[in-house]
Amino acid sequence: VALGPGGEFDLIRSVLGPETALPAGVVVGPGDDAAVLSGGRWALTCDLSVEDVHFRRDWLDPEEIGYRAAVVSLSDLAAMAAEPVTVLVACAATRADAASGVVERVHAGLREAVKEYGAAVVGGDVTRSPGPLVLDVTSVGRSESPILRDGARPGDEVWVTGSLGASAAHVRAMEAGGATTDAHRRAYARPSARTREALWLARTGELHALIDLSDGLVGDAGHLAAASGVALMLETASIPVAPGVAEVAGGGEEGVALALEGGEDYELVVVVPGGALDSRAADFRDRFGVTLSRVGRVETGDGVHIEEPDGTVRKLDRGGFDHFGPGARSR
Amino acid sequence: VALGPGGEFDLIRSVLGPETALPAGVVVGPGDDAAVLSGGRWALTCDLSVEDVHFRRDWLDPEEIGYRAAVVSLSDLAAMAAEPVTVLVACAATRADAASGVVERVHAGLREAVKEYGAAVVGGDVTRSPGPLVLDVTSVGRSESPILRDGARPGDEVWVTGSLGASAAHVRAMEAGGATTDAHRRAYARPSARTREALWLARTGELHALIDLSDGLVGDAGHLAAASGVALMLETASIPVAPGVAEVAGGGEEGVALALEGGEDYELVVVVPGGALDSRAADFRDRFGVTLSRVGRVETGDGVHIEEPDGTVRKLDRGGFDHFGPGARSR
Repeated sequence: VALGPGGEFDLIRSVLGPETALPAGVVVGPGDDAAVLSGGRWALTCDLSVEDVHFRRDWLDPEEIGYRAAVVSLSDLAAMAAEPVTVLVACAATRADAASGVVERVHAGLREAVKEYGAAVVGGDVTRSPGPLVLDVTSVGRSESPILRDGARPGDEVWVTGSLGASAAHVRAMEAGGATTDAHRRAYARPSARTREALWLARTGELHALIDLSDGLVGDAGHLAAASGVALMLETASIPVAPGVAEVAGGGEEGVALALEGGEDYELVVVVPGGALDSRAADFRDRFGVTLSRVGRVETGDGVHIEEPDGTVRKLDRGGFDHFGPGARSR
Repeated sequence: VALGPGGEFDLIRSVLGPETALPAGVVVGPGDDAAVLSGGRWALTCDLSVEDVHFRRDWLDPEEIGYRAAVVSLSDLAAMAAEPVTVLVACAATRADAASGVVERVHAGLREAVKEYGAAVVGGDVTRSPGPLVLDVTSVGRSESPILRDGARPGDEVWVTGSLGASAAHVRAMEAGGATTDAHRRAYARPSARTREALWLARTGELHALIDLSDGLVGDAGHLAAASGVALMLETASIPVAPGVAEVAGGGEEGVALALEGGEDYELVVVVPGGALDSRAADFRDRFGVTLSRVGRVETGDGVHIEEPDGTVRKLDRGGFDHFGPGARSR
């Protein structure tokens, strides 16, 4: 399974075991944003949200915990250009959370998000746990032509929807006990999955590869580079850093670094043939009220490279956010 | 959603929110063993396994934890007469469990079970948790003619595969610090999903309803009765109590009670028109080496009723195992 570097991804590689042939009825197996089944082209993906790892209860109300858990999972369907149809929700909660209504409020927030994206919860599991609160959201969507991670080719362009770093800036401000902004808090607590945007992009022109930004642009670009067998060159001058991120990060360069590595943006990285988005970017922005920025290019080689405004290039040897890594903190 | 009585099931009803129309592409929604999608008739189900709730680490080795978590989920596909195709695995684990290889061993056991049932793991999520170890196994199968819980009709017969109570007897013995048997331990640690049996039963004759035994016969019969809008009359003299269960339970009647209420047998409750299994039961036993016992009948009314050998009948007002109930213990 071709993923970028990092201890978490080594672990994923090892738990998947030796590569085996895909079972009959499976079109896309492990290693992409979602698996894809034949017969209806169903795309399947699951995402865990764990208290004190993915969220903190003093930072989010229960509805937001559920809303966010759903969007994180639905974002993986967007990354396949799949239309959400239905969701399974597994929830492990303490007896106190069940008795106090926290579990119901989490599910209410979750259902709200699922409904916003045109799907419905059709099943799941609720069980007691000694804690922490754990949610696993399995999202199921349909995609006639799923866009994978492995189609990036030298000469392609790398684009990103929206702006980056706001969610990470909120987390950094909260950890420092500092001030945050409504926009940064919203990016963290009520993120958007780029579902409509992905479907429109896939319908209106050729896409070579697609991935959503959960581990940070550097990390997710690393997965894309590994899956496609190419190098991704990111141009720091073009990174769409969200407003206010530089202030939180402590400077312009630090703001770019946070946008590159912060994670949890749930924007899309879109890889297209050179020039393929030029005529559509304005239409995209008008239609969705979301920016679309060319941030780099695909070259022969491997890994993720950063090109500074002065033309210097460095290859990054680290991946994205690694939950099991030595520096892992709550997020 | 029609489930039997119990606090856990009240909670499931409430988290599912108000009943809404099924989204396009969904044939069976919440409340059965699995949801079913049109376009390939994909059946979807997920099951959580939580440390110190569903399993204890001092009772199972990591491979068994994974194996068991997979079978529990695959059993819900059997309960729809669906053939397993693929599985998603979400795993929240401590850094220590990731570093020591426990996470890999759990996944190895899980993959072993998934392979035994003809499926393959195609995706999932691994993330850090402060603990406990939590697994959510989403199983995906195919069923051209899924057998639901809602088809039981007065005059039907209720049958059960295999024998009941061995898993519960093992748990009881372990909790008491007493002796267990290899067979009881195996029933708990390496249960079987009745996949081939369910597919054969569905293929060779008419089935009105099907459910697997996770909450105990009384509890799962309660779900079936609620879904079908009927009463289920269970005849205690006919319950196939597993060998040695009475000894652990402390007597013949106590053995029947444990078989009725113990849970985690992962056998099937099969509801058929009167007489429909008579000519096939012997063939079933020969083919699978598994017993098939007529344990009761379907009547007009509601709930689960017990008929004692002397003909006295009592209606049970409690459901199956309730994880959030006052008596909930580790299991």
